[in-house]
Order: sequence, then C-alpha cells, then structure tokens
Amino acid sequence: MLHVTIWNEYLHELQDPAIAKIYPHGIHGAIARGIAADDFDIRTATLNEPAHGLTDEVIQQTDVLIWWGHMAHDRVQDAIVEKVHDRVLNGMGLIVLHSGHESKIFKKLMGTRSGRLKWREADEKERLWVIDHAHPITAGIGEYIELPAEEMYGEAFHIPAPDELVFISWFEGGEVFRSGITFHREQGRIFYFRPGHETYPTYHNQDILRVISNAVRWAAPVPRMAPVFGNATPLEAIRGHRTA
Amino acid sequence: MLHVTIWNEYLHELQDPAIAKIYPHGIHGAIARGIAADDFDIRTATLNEPAHGLTDEVIQQTDVLIWWGHMAHDRVQDAIVEKVHDRVLNGMGLIVLHSGHESKIFKKLMGTRSGRLKWREADEKERLWVIDHAHPITAGIGEYIELPAEEMYGEAFHIPAPDELVFISWFEGGEVFRSGITFHREQGRIFYFRPGHETYPTYHNQDILRVISNAVRWAAPVPRMAPVFGNATPLEAIRGHRTA
Amino acid sequence: MLHVTIWNEYLHELQDPAIAKIYPHGIHGAIARGIAADDFDIRTATLNEPAHGLTDEVIQQTDVLIWWGHMAHDRVQDAIVEKVHDRVLNGMGLIVLHSGHESKIFKKLMGTRSGRLKWREADEKERLWVIDHAHPITAGIGEYIELPAEEMYGEAFHIPAPDELVFISWFEGGEVFRSGITFHREQGRIFYFRPGHETYPTYHNQDILRVISNAVRWAAPVPRMAPVFGNATPLEAIRGHRTA
Amino acid sequence: MLHVTIWNEYLHELQDPAIAKIYPHGIHGAIARGIAADDFDIRTATLNEPAHGLTDEVIQQTDVLIWWGHMAHDRVQDAIVEKVHDRVLNGMGLIVLHSGHESKIFKKLMGTRSGRLKWREADEKERLWVIDHAHPITAGIGEYIELPAEEMYGEAFHIPAPDELVFISWFEGGEVFRSGITFHREQGRIFYFRPGHETYPTYHNQDILRVISNAVRWAAPVPRMAPVFGNATPLEAIRGHRTA
Repeated sequence: MLHVTIWNEYLHELQDPAIAKIYPHGIHGAIARGIAADDFDIRTATLNEPAHGLTDEVIQQTDVLIWWGHMAHDRVQDAIVEKVHDRVLNGMGLIVLHSGHESKIFKKLMGTRSGRLKWREADEKERLWVIDHAHPITAGIGEYIELPAEEMYGEAFHIPAPDELVFISWFEGGEVFRSGITFHREQGRIFYFRPGHETYPTYHNQDILRVISNAVRWAAPVPRMAPVFGNATPLEAIRGHRTA
Repeated sequence: MLHVTIWNEYLHELQDPAIAKIYPHGIHGAIARGIAADDFDIRTATLNEPAHGLTDEVIQQTDVLIWWGHMAHDRVQDAIVEKVHDRVLNGMGLIVLHSGHESKIFKKLMGTRSGRLKWREADEKERLWVIDHAHPITAGIGEYIELPAEEMYGEAFHIPAPDELVFISWFEGGEVFRSGITFHREQGRIFYFRPGHETYPTYHNQDILRVISNAVRWAAPVPRMAPVFGNATPLEAIRGHRTA
Repeated sequence: MLHVTIWNEYLHELQDPAIAKIYPHGIHGAIARGIAADDFDIRTATLNEPAHGLTDEVIQQTDVLIWWGHMAHDRVQDAIVEKVHDRVLNGMGLIVLHSGHESKIFKKLMGTRSGRLKWREADEKERLWVIDHAHPITAGIGEYIELPAEEMYGEAFHIPAPDELVFISWFEGGEVFRSGITFHREQGRIFYFRPGHETYPTYHNQDILRVISNAVRWAAPVPRMAPVFGNATPLEAIRGHRTA
Repeated sequence: MLHVTIWNEYLHELQDPAIAKIYPHGIHGAIARGIAADDFDIRTATLNEPAHGLTDEVIQQTDVLIWWGHMAHDRVQDAIVEKVHDRVLNGMGLIVLHSGHESKIFKKLMGTRSGRLKWREADEKERLWVIDHAHPITAGIGEYIELPAEEMYGEAFHIPAPDELVFISWFEGGEVFRSGITFHREQGRIFYFRPGHETYPTYHNQDILRVISNAVRWAAPVPRMAPVFGNATPLEAIRGHRTA
C-alpha cells in the first residue's frame, strides 16, 4: 500500500466560481478521484488547515507527496517546508505540478531560481511529446498528449539539468518547455509535471491522470537504511585487520 | 509475470573442475536459483544450444535478458546479436554481467570500445559503494557490498557517461570502477553490473543476487506503443484545421 | 591553430540547380567561408574524392571534423567510417549536421537507430530555443534562433540521452526536436546540430554559423595521454610497497 | 583577461604554526602563485576583510571565484552568500575546494545536505582517477593523480547527480568519492574539487594546480544576454502575424 498525500493550495476554487465549476471538489479532489487505485491510500491536505494539513505525523506517513500551489506560495510556513525538504531527502517521493515550480519546496530543492520562466494565458494548444520512451512514467501514453487549451510555460526554465527528460511541451505560440522531468535528491525522487492551470479541466484528462499515477509508483520510496556520516572507521583498525 | 532469460556462455564451468565446483549447475543455474521469485518466469540459454538458445520465439517472449560471457564473445553469431539489439531497442530489459562488457551486444549498444579496461586477478577485496541512494536497484542494500575476493576491473572504462551511476567499486590495489550503471536506449533499459568472475562464488552472495533481482524488476518493459517515424502529417492539413 | 575538416556529401548541389544557386560553392564552401577565423585552419573533403577526401593523413591531422551527408550515406566506405570512429574515440571533435543523424559514423557512435525520426518538408518556421544557458556553444546567441523556413525534424529521435541538451527546436506544425546535443565518447566530443536542409540558405545564417564556430572550439581535442588498458600492476608489487 | 578571485577563510594558517609552515602566504597565496598565467588577473579575498573581501564591486568584476572554507562557514554573512549565489546564476564561474562542500554557497546551490559525508584524518594515500577523458579539466593530467597523504572523504556524498563526473578518488582505507564534478546552474558553471586539507601541501602539487587552472578556464563566463522572463508575447500578435 502506497500512502499518497495530495497537497493543494485550494484558494482559486473557493474564490472563483468558474474554477469551482471545473473543480467542485478542488484540484486535490479531482486528482484523488482520478488516480484512485487499490494499492493507493490517498489523503489530501490544504493550505488553510492547521499546519497546512502537513502535521509531523502526516509527513512521516506519506510515501509520495503531490504538490499544487500558485498564488500563496509565501503563506506556506518555512518550518513546514523544512520538514518536507528533510522528508524528501530521506526518501519520500515528491510530485510537483504546474505552478508548483515557484513553491518554496521546489526552489529549495533545485538551488536555482526555478520560479522564473515565460508564461501566457491564451487558451493555447499544448502538446507534450514523450522524449524518454523507456521511462515507466510514460506507460500507456502515446507519442504525445494533446491538451486543447492550457496556459503556456516557455523556456528559459532555470532548473538544474534534470536527471531524466521525460516530456517536452510544444505550444501554439512558438515556445517549448521541459514539461516532465525527474530528479534524484539523496534518497528521494522528484517529478515535475507542467500541465494544470486552474482555469482548464486538465486534471480530468485521462492521460494526465495516468502520468501522475505512473509518477506516484515511480517515486515510491526505496526501502533501505540511510547512509552513515562523519568520522569513519580509523585506518589503524583497517590496517591492523588487513595485515593480520 | 516477468519473463526472464539468463544467458550464459557456459564454457568455464564445463572445462575447469575448480569452477564447476563453485557453479555445479553453471553460473546461469546459480543466478536462476538465486533470484527465483513467484512473479519471475525464468529460463536459461547457453552458447552451445541451437541459436545459442536464443530463438526468435525466446527473444520475443523475454522481458528481461541477463547476459554472462567471457572467453567466446566472438562465437556469438552476428545475426543473433542483431535480433537481441533490436529487441532491446524495442523494450526488452538487458542486464550485462561482469566480462559481458566485452560482448558484441554491449559494445554495439554503447558505440564505444567498452571492452577496454584494466584488470587483475589477485583475490582482491572489492567494495561496491552505493552512489545513487534513491535508485530502486539499491533496495535492501547497505552502504556497500563487500566481496572478500574478486577479479579487479579498473578505470578507464570507455563507456558513454551512464544515465545513472548506481555503484562505484573500490579495489584493494588502488583502482576504482563504475560497477553499477544504467542506460536508456530507445524503449529499452540496460543495467551493467561488474562483479562475477567465474573463479569466485560471487553469484552465491545474497547482496549480489538482490541487486540482480532488483535490476530485473527495474528493467522490465514499459507497456507502450512504439513511436511512428518518417514523413509526418502534412502541414497543410494542420494549418487547414487550425484556421477552420 | 585548430585544424578543421568540413566533409560534405556534395551531391545535391551538383544535381539540382536550385540548390546550386543557394550553395554555389557547396554546403562545405558556405560553412568554410562562414566560420573562417584566424586560428582555424580549414580544409574540405567530399564523397567523390579518393578516400572521400579522408585519407589517413587528413584524418590524423584533423582536430575537428564537420559532417554533412544525406542521400548517399551507404556510399561511404565502412573502412573510412572505422577510421573516423577510432579517431573520434581518440580525441578528434565531431560535429554532425542535419541529416547526418543517419550517417554511418553517427549511428555507430550512438549505438541506437538514430536514423529514425519524423520529418516534413513544408517551408516551416523553426525556432531553436537555448536550453543550457551556461554552455559555450551558445555564446553570442539570444534566447532562440529563428529560421523562417526549414525542413521539420520531430521526436521521437532515438539517440541516447545526450550529455548536454543545448537547443530544443519548435516547429510550426506541432513538433519539437532536441536540435543541439552533446556527447562525450572516450576522449572525443561530439555535437549534433539539426538545421541545414539543402533547399534552404540555413548555412548563410549568422547565428547558425556562430553556433557551428562555437562548437568547433568546444570540440577541440584535450591534450592528454591515452589511458592504458589490460593487465594492471600486480597486487603483490603494490602490497610489498605498502608494507615496506 | 580572466578575472579570478580566490577566497580563503584564512584562519587555520594564522592559528596553527604547522599549517603556517606549509602555507606561509595562506592557501589563497599558494593557489594564486600556482595558477598564475598571463591571461589571469588574480586577486584574493578572506573572511576577516570587510565584506569578507567580497564587495559588490569585487563580485561583479569576478569571472571565476575559487572558494576554500572549513571551520567558519557560519561566519560568512548570508547577505554576501545571496550576492554570490545571484552572480553565479548570472554567469560567474565557481570552483569549490575541499571542505567548501559544507559552505553556505555550495549547499544553497545544491539544494541538498551536501555537507554530509564520511571523513578520516589518517595521512592516507589518495588516487584521483580520471573518469571523463574528453573533459578539458583533465588536460595534461595522466590516468590519475596520486597524493601520498590526504584527509579521506568518502561516499555517501549527498550532491545531486553531477552534470559531469571528471574524477573519482580511491582511498587506502576502503572508500571512494566523486572528487571532481561539474554542474551547470542557470548561466553559471561550477566545479567541485575534493583535495586540499589544510595540513597537507596539496596546493603545491603541480597536477592539482593544473586541474584548478584548467577549471578556471572551463568555468569562464559565456558572453550572452540573460533570458527574459514573465508574461510573453501575446498569442493574438503571433496569430495575426502568422495569418497575415
């Protein structure tokens, strides 16, 4: 059983009736329903809950955390971000969606100004082309996923070179974007996935949900002991043993 | 169910009683027993069988192929190598062990003179240090695997930079080696794993077997359609549709 | 002084007056003039010369080889390809242009079916977006290079994951392509650069020429000894020394 | 002319006579003398100078910054670290030496707990093996650099997978370490180089100095405009233009 927590800022859906109509149960609700599976134990958490819904217990019990945020990145408490950061480095999977590129947790993990990119809201066609055809995150996906209308995100996207480049997006207006990218950071695995502006029904798209579901399985923690740090076995002991 | 084929040259074990004692059922037999699992359907194949045991049917039905060869790389027929190459690029996983670095199939996939490296037979201690602590191939493995005696392989190892560097080996005599490395090639995933000289009981070591077993699961084919190539949809059709 | 050899198939320009008009001195001539610099010693070589212009002496004296081929890949002799392959692995830089993706030398170095991709001839707009903003190959280039009309190449492009992804192309018709990519192979450095279909004046574009010129400098050989292979220093010698 | 600034904590050399004897002009002085070249304009800066010697003017004028720190990472002001971080992302090269792995600037750029590793002070032999034989940082270096006595650093080293792995260290006591690694971060290039504990004359070793010198040239800024971010060209303008 994989313990999945879907974190959503959950402000747009409450403030804008047009968005509420697309996501009546919130973006988190749509994703939770969309990726439901027998071996997933899914819970949700939102900004306005105590500790943003991310208590120590929740963080510790989560195998894979999905993150959607946009307009209130600054309101996420630094102390919570630190705990999530530690937990990722200790093995929790992290899936960062769309405008989560500008979240505190993603920026901290990247070490760059990943919040900087080009954008345009113009009901634009997006095509996410599969680039890494051997990657499990692409299971069941054709050559590309086409979204009839989305917000555009364009390069430059100031991330470190990703460990794996899974999708590249094409946009009608002339831009490209590294839309599906993976990173290993210590014991944790991270997947950034671009689509999902709040004004479009992207998280009702079966291919998009399939990718997120694949990513949850891919990012599941690897069961192993943490490495040991600091002052190592004395050389004298090693030498003594060796010549004995 | 994962269909695993273990290919072994199977000459040393028949020619040298000391080696036969270590591997009475062949190296392939030791690995087959060592990685047995309910969801693995394992068969073996050897050089002297017709088509080296790798008939078209076997190649097509194999999800993950494990390859051990050493003294008779040249005797593997080019036509079989071509078929295995195609099958890997179409999605079959490939695990290349030890001196398989010099096999026709591995060299063809690398595009370099991967057969060139340093070696020494001196009953030397080897430590395989885990480098990528988020990699599923390391599940259940401590900080390192220690083998009391092995053949040494030392850098330079003229492979392309691997997609992921999972293990680095330390050897008593002063050398290091990239011992656990992954490559994505088209739809196929490849893992090279260094240990396993025929004169040592390496394939009876539980950690080594665990790594091979992890690698089989990691290299399993991703279910997806092959991409389409060649002359693409005419632009006129696209433009017509767009301005309609 | 960098010794640069520009190899061109040089058939289209002789057979098609429209192409001859664009490249009256051949594609090689246009590139030679376009990247001329005080520290470049440039020569050209073509398919129909003896040894395709690539005698042993030329191959040995070349620091960086630029390769353009399209309709006659099969007519390049295997023996010459072997020599170029060895020379690249021993340190010569290689810049493969446009349809050179299907050349024998590039396919051999990749180990995949890199000849397979999507294409369309439709006078299509191409934008090459800079992805790696720290790469010396991008010196002096803006955010993107725009070509008003080019042949389209689209993913899937079945290369190994490149060591560095420098440019991604956007095409009007809906495709993307990894258009500027680097590979280290043994001691040699390789740059593949997509643009340059024979029916367009792409090699008169100052940005395209600048990239090729940057790539020549980037791919220049690193002065160093080749590594040593085979049976290494005996452990006894090492042990004796250590305990002395 | 390349403007190089060598930053050194410069405490050990003032506090410990044994270290002062090895580095009478400080570690920064030894490196400055050791890499001197006609096209390098070298200055030094130390912790106890105003602004740690890193005024806005110095930071802006520096092309490549070399960083050595160990016991006083916490005393480096956050405001200075922020400025160096910005400057690296805007194109300044950064070379981090030895215990600089735990500096604020390196940790911030990595996004991981890169300060954690194994260590041992035991006058141990280290061999730095060249792994990337095509890398300009290895120019003029043999197969390995041998240091008769150094502090040991051992994996796990919790950095992101480097863009390029140039050196791997072997240590007498049984450990390995990724000792020479590169990262591209936005417009800046970073090289981490392990050797150089203050109690050993490592920065008088000609090979070590050669690597640092090579790295300075490799990390030199690429002359180019910074990309543009934010709201992009309206699609209407693009569409209008396209159908005109």
